[in-house]
Amino acid sequence: MGSDEADIRALIQRWHDATARGDVDAVLALMSEDVAFFVAGKEPMKGRAAFAAGLRGLLKTHRIVSSGDVREVQVSGDLAFVVSLLQVRIIPNDAGNESVRSGHAMSVFRRQADGGWLLIRDANLLPSA
Amino acid sequence: MGSDEADIRALIQRWHDATARGDVDAVLALMSEDVAFFVAGKEPMKGRAAFAAGLRGLLKTHRIVSSGDVREVQVSGDLAFVVSLLQVRIIPNDAGNESVRSGHAMSVFRRQADGGWLLIRDANLLPSA
Repeated sequence: MGSDEADIRALIQRWHDATARGDVDAVLALMSEDVAFFVAGKEPMKGRAAFAAGLRGLLKTHRIVSSGDVREVQVSGDLAFVVSLLQVRIIPNDAGNESVRSGHAMSVFRRQADGGWLLIRDANLLPSA
Repeated sequence: MGSDEADIRALIQRWHDATARGDVDAVLALMSEDVAFFVAGKEPMKGRAAFAAGLRGLLKTHRIVSSGDVREVQVSGDLAFVVSLLQVRIIPNDAGNESVRSGHAMSVFRRQADGGWLLIRDANLLPSA
């Protein structure tokens, strides 16, 4: 495994860990300002600020436990893409049923001027909630 | 626009044109042997042969008219990704209602040894049929 691939896999693990402990700022540090998230049948969610608002809203009443099996990483130049098989549990803080969904995601990362990688585009292919 | 981006945009236009005239071999020439197609909530479809079987089956009873607005192309090294806003019409040859769906796709292309580009991964984010 090249060091770029190792860096990207470490970033993905940090994403899951920070999400589980509700550390929104740590998740935001892993994506570009102009990140875009695509979900089937919806308008894309564009920008880190929009993602932050959505995640902070959800975490007021829930916690999120996610894990992922990275199936593929390809890197060339300053671009990389990853295919993961994700499992996402959304657990209400109070009474209520948790939701568990699993499916694939295809994510694009771009190397930044400082040499580090950030998520720039994400296609979420989990079944709709 | 760089020549790589122009080549990739031309490939996408050839894809729509070949699909509309039912020229499956011409579509297959635009993807790698190990291409994978991801759709929300389903198992991915892997390999050119699986795609060919699916398309040939559909074209026995329907024709497909698709168009796409390429919203973004990023190229680095031997990788490129494209975000498109697609419209796909599936029209029965005999009586029956046509289906029209629109939504985004995120596609990854890889430069081949001969310098040309091929589709290698595709995430289809259209609403489910």
